[in-house]
Amino acid sequence: MDELAIGLIGAGRIGKLHGDNIARLVPGARLEAIAEIRLTGEHRLWAGKNGVKKVYEDPAEIWKDRDIDAVFICSSTETHAEFIIQAARAGKHIFCEKPVHTDVGRIREALDETAKAGVKLQVGFVRRFDHNHRKVRDTVASGRLGKPHIIKITSRDPEGPPLSYIAASGGIFMDMTIHDFDMARYLAGSEVSEVSAWGAVMIDKNYERYGDVDTAAVMLKFENGALGIIDNSRAARYGYDQRTEVHCDRGCVRVENDLVDTSVTSTADGVVCERPTWFFLERYNDAFVAEARAFVDAVRNGADVPVDGKDGLAAVYIAMAAGKSLRENRPVKLAGIM
Amino acid sequence: MDELAIGLIGAGRIGKLHGDNIARLVPGARLEAIAEIRLTGEHRLWAGKNGVKKVYEDPAEIWKDRDIDAVFICSSTETHAEFIIQAARAGKHIFCEKPVHTDVGRIREALDETAKAGVKLQVGFVRRFDHNHRKVRDTVASGRLGKPHIIKITSRDPEGPPLSYIAASGGIFMDMTIHDFDMARYLAGSEVSEVSAWGAVMIDKNYERYGDVDTAAVMLKFENGALGIIDNSRAARYGYDQRTEVHCDRGCVRVENDLVDTSVTSTADGVVCERPTWFFLERYNDAFVAEARAFVDAVRNGADVPVDGKDGLAAVYIAMAAGKSLRENRPVKLAGIM
Amino acid sequence: MDELAIGLIGAGRIGKLHGDNIARLVPGARLEAIAEIRLTGEHRLWAGKNGVKKVYEDPAEIWKDRDIDAVFICSSTETHAEFIIQAARAGKHIFCEKPVHTDVGRIREALDETAKAGVKLQVGFVRRFDHNHRKVRDTVASGRLGKPHIIKITSRDPEGPPLSYIAASGGIFMDMTIHDFDMARYLAGSEVSEVSAWGAVMIDKNYERYGDVDTAAVMLKFENGALGIIDNSRAARYGYDQRTEVHCDRGCVRVENDLVDTSVTSTADGVVCERPTWFFLERYNDAFVAEARAFVDAVRNGADVPVDGKDGLAAVYIAMAAGKSLRENRPVKLAGIM
Amino acid sequence: MDELAIGLIGAGRIGKLHGDNIARLVPGARLEAIAEIRLTGEHRLWAGKNGVKKVYEDPAEIWKDRDIDAVFICSSTETHAEFIIQAARAGKHIFCEKPVHTDVGRIREALDETAKAGVKLQVGFVRRFDHNHRKVRDTVASGRLGKPHIIKITSRDPEGPPLSYIAASGGIFMDMTIHDFDMARYLAGSEVSEVSAWGAVMIDKNYERYGDVDTAAVMLKFENGALGIIDNSRAARYGYDQRTEVHCDRGCVRVENDLVDTSVTSTADGVVCERPTWFFLERYNDAFVAEARAFVDAVRNGADVPVDGKDGLAAVYIAMAAGKSLRENRPVKLAGIM
Repeated sequence: MDELAIGLIGAGRIGKLHGDNIARLVPGARLEAIAEIRLTGEHRLWAGKNGVKKVYEDPAEIWKDRDIDAVFICSSTETHAEFIIQAARAGKHIFCEKPVHTDVGRIREALDETAKAGVKLQVGFVRRFDHNHRKVRDTVASGRLGKPHIIKITSRDPEGPPLSYIAASGGIFMDMTIHDFDMARYLAGSEVSEVSAWGAVMIDKNYERYGDVDTAAVMLKFENGALGIIDNSRAARYGYDQRTEVHCDRGCVRVENDLVDTSVTSTADGVVCERPTWFFLERYNDAFVAEARAFVDAVRNGADVPVDGKDGLAAVYIAMAAGKSLRENRPVKLAGIM
Repeated sequence: MDELAIGLIGAGRIGKLHGDNIARLVPGARLEAIAEIRLTGEHRLWAGKNGVKKVYEDPAEIWKDRDIDAVFICSSTETHAEFIIQAARAGKHIFCEKPVHTDVGRIREALDETAKAGVKLQVGFVRRFDHNHRKVRDTVASGRLGKPHIIKITSRDPEGPPLSYIAASGGIFMDMTIHDFDMARYLAGSEVSEVSAWGAVMIDKNYERYGDVDTAAVMLKFENGALGIIDNSRAARYGYDQRTEVHCDRGCVRVENDLVDTSVTSTADGVVCERPTWFFLERYNDAFVAEARAFVDAVRNGADVPVDGKDGLAAVYIAMAAGKSLRENRPVKLAGIM
Repeated sequence: MDELAIGLIGAGRIGKLHGDNIARLVPGARLEAIAEIRLTGEHRLWAGKNGVKKVYEDPAEIWKDRDIDAVFICSSTETHAEFIIQAARAGKHIFCEKPVHTDVGRIREALDETAKAGVKLQVGFVRRFDHNHRKVRDTVASGRLGKPHIIKITSRDPEGPPLSYIAASGGIFMDMTIHDFDMARYLAGSEVSEVSAWGAVMIDKNYERYGDVDTAAVMLKFENGALGIIDNSRAARYGYDQRTEVHCDRGCVRVENDLVDTSVTSTADGVVCERPTWFFLERYNDAFVAEARAFVDAVRNGADVPVDGKDGLAAVYIAMAAGKSLRENRPVKLAGIM
Repeated sequence: MDELAIGLIGAGRIGKLHGDNIARLVPGARLEAIAEIRLTGEHRLWAGKNGVKKVYEDPAEIWKDRDIDAVFICSSTETHAEFIIQAARAGKHIFCEKPVHTDVGRIREALDETAKAGVKLQVGFVRRFDHNHRKVRDTVASGRLGKPHIIKITSRDPEGPPLSYIAASGGIFMDMTIHDFDMARYLAGSEVSEVSAWGAVMIDKNYERYGDVDTAAVMLKFENGALGIIDNSRAARYGYDQRTEVHCDRGCVRVENDLVDTSVTSTADGVVCERPTWFFLERYNDAFVAEARAFVDAVRNGADVPVDGKDGLAAVYIAMAAGKSLRENRPVKLAGIM
């Protein structure tokens, strides 16, 4: 295949991020069209800067454009399944932001359609492309530390989203921890079999109104016998805290946060270092590029995508189990809800 | 009070450690006598080097010695309660190694006797005296980070004990995690209200024979609303991994391991640093001295001991709840077992 | 000024790097033309990918192109002065790679021409745009540590250039340490008044043939009274070692290298971390972008460039003094050679 | 030899430190006597606590005491040579604090006497016994990094001594840098052949009155071809900055400071770590014990002492060369002054 022509569905913050990357930093791909339901002049301006001439309100324009090889679905979560289905039927390869959808029935339908159509579907678990977490995975997967015993994930946002967002988020596990559930599977190299989740409202009492929590601790059991531990916060204040750590037979591998810079300032008052990079746009900036490149490479080379629809579905199941565990204050086996 | 005359009960590894410290490094105290049931010439030699002339097999010799002000109970766990009771009746102040005992009934009896006798009882949770963990506690307790949200404890031994020890250990939670349960209470500044524990046998299948595990993950709920996470291993291989981390309203405080040295060797093959200090004798060497000094100071000044019998009992209750949680695969409330 | 149209002179490794950055990552600029004396099909292909239609062998084509506002001079060092003069006469703003030239007479001519023409000249001391070194500078310049006492620069290449390069390099001080001389001025906020340089041939005896060294230590005196220390190696083996450190009245600020990732792998055999990023393309990747942006912003806004021709000249003088100091084994005052 | 009976000459701060260590922490040795010219009741009290009964004003009492095997000379520098000579004549083995003396003629006399008497003389370059610096030395000496290219020493005191001390100190090179000169020889495994020293008065103008400096940078050449760099400050403010770094054929080894604790506190305001341990009493606490043990072991086993009189003399020569280099602003060859 020659250069991959990509249509972008949804040009909000994350859509623009992917669009900019495709236009500038992903060899073998070009940004061919964008579709944005709430289209404004600002979107047109942005498209123009990236040399994109096809600017639509209706994604259907993209499905029917024969020039377009693949789509990036960056619209709101509840539209994901439907757009995957339509893109698949139109024969487009698909990159879809996480989560695939919050309704597993709809996800299954979407996966069936992509299978039927023979198109690729990659899910946007961008952290797999981070240099740090990837190093942890590669070290574990190499087998040189032996089998994993405990997978630990610290995942804390610097500041919470607006409350309006919380209301529609599907809860902390489906919205935020879902990244960690995927990371846990990725690092452990094994499926999760059981979840035990606790939560607390420590930051903003309003979370209670939505039956949600802003602080969480989750234990996982994996099919290979390993245990997992995740801790989350909606507002860590000091920056985006994203650390992973895997303990194995012969030792452990762990990664620290990337920092704004490596400076150390020492005075009689103390020693001051820099904070972690602020949030996901800063921390996973390079990972977003690597993710898009991996998708484009897989499509062009007819290879498997590195994160597929089954990965997307698996993380949703774990999030559902975690929600149930929190509500019922007991461990929940994945087998019981799949 | 003038110099505190101390009788040591039990001169095994930990007893000798305390004895050496008292003899050399604890101002205001002297090692007056030792009692060791399995007394050998080697014990006499060791006592001689420390200038101790009273060397007994029977601890009763210590109870009746009017010169002795206080005892260090370093004999095997099942003797602790009895020796506390006898020491208390003899009017001796008591330092007792952890755990106080594994039977809460016996612990309560022992605490009653010390109360009746008006003697002080300090329990050997030595990690409270470590410079690193203490800094975490002091930072949290200062209130400048606001209230705690999540307390995280990584606690991994470099190598497992002999299997014979495992058989009599009372299980990982009573033997090893009990330190972490005390640490959790210490850092959170709050009582544990509920425990959810998972374990796995990843290192040595023999643990299964004793109904024990060698790898564990534990979640805690605290009365102040905070959550806790502990992970344990009987054999981390790379050294003694002892890290604590507390996330609060306005940020977090955490500590890394002490290392053998701070060297960094960089070649084309990689960058190599030193490992954590090997085990508790190395890591908590200074903490053992600080612990003994704190006891001696409290007794001499008529002040409260920094870790008392109620602290010893509280940790045992949490360990019991953790065991029950592991066996029944469900969260266990402390209220239900106290 | 609208979008800045840039002509690139010289499309070798560093020229392509700047060209790619201008084409993709520098807002407000576009790559309009390239001129490369040894033009090949590969250069045309590369230009095409960046949407550049004007591809020349002769830089003169660029001087006379009325569409072009500014040039990036990335040709070999001995052409720099001449091209600056021609670009200035043509009214183009100029970004010139370091060193400006090795002949101070020619540099002075070039600076005179840019002054006469009223065009801006920025010199490519890219390290000033590195997030780490910039943080050191900003901390010192803020004055909150008081006046600087000692400026320390560790600057070690991972591997030496080919010997053919050494022959024409002008020697380690003019070729390599010149970056550190600029960094020293930048960090100290003061001019160098005296240099004392020692060198050694530790890596490759061939350096002796060229009267050059592969290992160097340099002391600097600054007009503000501070002292400076630089150490250099042509082959550090473990990666690109680029650290700066400034000690002041009230404390110090220093930076460590950026690492490939933050992983730490711990086993019984030791603790292994990652190496520094390999060489300047990796380490100063973002700094090259920031440097080009700063030039484009300065030209478009009519502001001063952050590193000008006088900075370029000052570093050359220090390099000359260092060479003289090495040859004569004595401290050399800058005043004596300017 | 049985237990080594030690007489302490001079019971000021450093003398008491050694005395306490010998009394408590050095197996195979006992503190038998002390002599202190300015003897007070406080010295008697301190001696009593350490079980020492022989407390003298006149060191001669120690020379003639047949029970005493060895002496620790901790009196003021100008008395060192004389006391070494007297101790040697009395057949006592000798540990002498640094510097041996400031007059090389007197040092040579003293060394001659110890040689004649066949007694051991160890000089108190305590930093050789620090776990960090020793690791650097051992790594270099192992040869696995190849031959050394550059030795770097950062050595900065947290606060300056009283001015009265400065007046009699012999200047920064003889008083403070002498430790670094010894460290340089120790790390390089080679003799210094040439010195180039610069200094500045940045902290306290009073240093000028004594022809002294409070800030210094020194370059060294070694006989094996390596270069050395030292930087010093009398008042680093943030703690005792003691770092060493050696670059070799195949890579480098370096050490960071020991910190008060390993805590990292992260808030929106920044990330705060702990400072280096405050000064030499804290940083080299364990090294002082190791140093005394090494002396006692060498004497008892008839082995060579790890730092001998020639080491003491060599450091003094380098300090003299550095002083000359500073005054004359030119490199000074050691050969010219020995």
